[in-house]
Amino acid sequence: MRPLPLSVTNYAHETLRHLVALPSVSAEGRALGETADAVRVLLEELGLKVELHPTAGAPVIYAEGGEGDKTLLFYNHYDVQPADPLELWHSDPFTLTEREGKLYGRGASDDKGELTSRLAALKWFQQEHGRIPFKVKFCIEGEEEVGSPHLEHYVEEHQDLLKADAVIWEAGGVDIADRPQVYCGLKGIVGLELRVKTAGYDLHSSYGAVVQNPLYRLSRAIASLRDDEGKVLVKGFSDKVRALTELEEETLGRIPDESPQLGKTFGVDKFMGGVSGKAFYQKLLAQPCININGIHGGYGGPGSKTVLPAEAFAKLDIRLVPDQEPQEILELMRAHLKEHGFDDVELVVAKFGERPARSSLASPWVQQAIEACREVYDQEPVVWPNFAGSGPMHPFTNVLGAPVVGLGVGYPGSKIHSPDEHIRIQDFELGIAVVKRAMEKFAGL
Amino acid sequence: MRPLPLSVTNYAHETLRHLVALPSVSAEGRALGETADAVRVLLEELGLKVELHPTAGAPVIYAEGGEGDKTLLFYNHYDVQPADPLELWHSDPFTLTEREGKLYGRGASDDKGELTSRLAALKWFQQEHGRIPFKVKFCIEGEEEVGSPHLEHYVEEHQDLLKADAVIWEAGGVDIADRPQVYCGLKGIVGLELRVKTAGYDLHSSYGAVVQNPLYRLSRAIASLRDDEGKVLVKGFSDKVRALTELEEETLGRIPDESPQLGKTFGVDKFMGGVSGKAFYQKLLAQPCININGIHGGYGGPGSKTVLPAEAFAKLDIRLVPDQEPQEILELMRAHLKEHGFDDVELVVAKFGERPARSSLASPWVQQAIEACREVYDQEPVVWPNFAGSGPMHPFTNVLGAPVVGLGVGYPGSKIHSPDEHIRIQDFELGIAVVKRAMEKFAGL
Repeated sequence: MRPLPLSVTNYAHETLRHLVALPSVSAEGRALGETADAVRVLLEELGLKVELHPTAGAPVIYAEGGEGDKTLLFYNHYDVQPADPLELWHSDPFTLTEREGKLYGRGASDDKGELTSRLAALKWFQQEHGRIPFKVKFCIEGEEEVGSPHLEHYVEEHQDLLKADAVIWEAGGVDIADRPQVYCGLKGIVGLELRVKTAGYDLHSSYGAVVQNPLYRLSRAIASLRDDEGKVLVKGFSDKVRALTELEEETLGRIPDESPQLGKTFGVDKFMGGVSGKAFYQKLLAQPCININGIHGGYGGPGSKTVLPAEAFAKLDIRLVPDQEPQEILELMRAHLKEHGFDDVELVVAKFGERPARSSLASPWVQQAIEACREVYDQEPVVWPNFAGSGPMHPFTNVLGAPVVGLGVGYPGSKIHSPDEHIRIQDFELGIAVVKRAMEKFAGL
Repeated sequence: MRPLPLSVTNYAHETLRHLVALPSVSAEGRALGETADAVRVLLEELGLKVELHPTAGAPVIYAEGGEGDKTLLFYNHYDVQPADPLELWHSDPFTLTEREGKLYGRGASDDKGELTSRLAALKWFQQEHGRIPFKVKFCIEGEEEVGSPHLEHYVEEHQDLLKADAVIWEAGGVDIADRPQVYCGLKGIVGLELRVKTAGYDLHSSYGAVVQNPLYRLSRAIASLRDDEGKVLVKGFSDKVRALTELEEETLGRIPDESPQLGKTFGVDKFMGGVSGKAFYQKLLAQPCININGIHGGYGGPGSKTVLPAEAFAKLDIRLVPDQEPQEILELMRAHLKEHGFDDVELVVAKFGERPARSSLASPWVQQAIEACREVYDQEPVVWPNFAGSGPMHPFTNVLGAPVVGLGVGYPGSKIHSPDEHIRIQDFELGIAVVKRAMEKFAGL
């Protein structure tokens, strides 16, 4: 990598220090307007035209600059996770603190570090090339850490304004072996609760001979949903699963097999179905799954209590792949329960949900981003057709119809969402450089 | 009923007041020695020879008196449940308090009320008949409320001393319609925990595609144990279930059908299998069942958490009928888990357990007790071959080989184990009279 100009490095550190100092915790509704204003000023200083668009929640910052036929859009967010538990931080979460080549602070990685890397890349690009020979747009929301409740609606309403040929996603970085990663999609997610109530109040368990047990019914319902290897047994569930393209299959097969190391780290002897290598990544990335987040009902304290509980509940999330639709999946779940006689199991939809997204690996933009990575990191990047996690990518890939790539400044030890969140300065600089290089590729430079 | 002599009534009230004042909470190890001494003095005052036998826990009070070929044994306990929550009592739990024809206090029913009723009956019998023309024995333990952990061993070790032709059980009383009840057995019980651990720590739920979910495995295991009507599916589970005799069948059929009223009280629309009447009592009393007391694992708070829990557990109790053996049942459960591939489900045996017990309804003693009830209460008693609950009756029916009947001073509103435990004075007097009359029947008087 070519070293960053000192002015860019200084700008990046100062900008990140400035942003981390603003405690924009969306879960607590803290400092969101103030932070949006600070980001607006930063964008304006880079020569962009900025608008703050109100939503039913925190405002979305929209910015544009440059000039040309093609458009590159950045998606980021200016809100952060709560800093609790404060006592586990080794320096103040809202004071960017450098220790041993790392920068600590809430949002240092997620997502103020990444937002800053794009601003710094833009600054560097303009220092070197003068004008930007394409349109650049920013869409920066303030509610990502509370599930982006208004983003999909916002993108739909502003699709003409946001129109783009390429999108850089909010987060990313290097993997456990310091290999750069490019990812092109995310799984979707649906959350729900299953509830069973069989009596007006808890009964003495001797009545278990004649009164139905809600935990038995819940167990039966859950056991009916999938098999031992995680295959979903709900009728029609996988009908809309889009087959992987040949290129996606090939790309999956080139992901370095970290399953043995993951197994060791997680304390897992064997993954479901005994998979490893390509089969592991296929199962992890390309197959939907039904996951049980929790079951609770009846006595759970020390010793015993001979009680027949009156009610019980389970919290579930379902991870979706293209082209599964959350609403359809919920209908299939309801139909499954009905068909299998679970009239006593109530399905309650949770307040979160995302559609799955996967960009075409064959698109020029994905190839340009991969090349930029290869050049900046001086090694072959690991390309993921999609990650196993979920996020609000669907409005960009499907409403705007633009290919999306995830790049960033994190590494697996960044402790995002946790105390001592940080980035390594080396990753920060590489993250700035890769965005600048991708912009150059996009411009044909 | 013939009215009680005033001296007997006074004795009963004074004795119960004295015993309730002693806070013999076995779960807290309180005042057990003091209470055992107080009971010893009471028994000696009635002319019995008393010994306190040490066990690994609280001492057992053994007493004997009377003279004759036949022996009647009383089983009672001098310990009580904790009084918590204290703020829900309307008078001090350890001060016997009379309000509106009721006597309030911890143990007023369970089991100091019943123990007192036997002492008062003995006093009355002796006042009226002089000597007792049969051997009378008492076995009064101090650990019933913590599961009688040493009683079975005690009875086995002292079976020659305790030898008896008839036993009166610790508790009983009238039903919801004030009909006297006689019961002749109890179900057995086995407690256990099922535990599953699939990872070293909780993971992000996106890994649910490849890492096994402990709540799914637990659900599958539990769903494999029984069917929707409560029928146990564990191989060999019901092999040792003793068929009801013709008399037991007939007796079951004569139990007044309270299932509609119970359903209303419990808030249960339909009992399992849609049973009512004789079928309801057959299922409740004569069929074993596997009951889930609780399942806990993963997130259970408000909203959602996309977590893949690392571990989960379920607490179960199994209610047994003659001649099922707890140890054999546990072996069958283990074999079931193994046979169905649940090597990952750990079975941990709980610290409580009782064998099932059922006395012969045809025995002269059961018939004498029924007749005594009929005469004293002046109505037909409800006879139960066994109750649905569990208790340490097996050592008496099976080690001593004596028929056991349950009689007592309680009613369904007595709030045993709860704040404001009480008895109605009318039930107290009837409970004294019925024991005295049963003694007369036993003596051929």
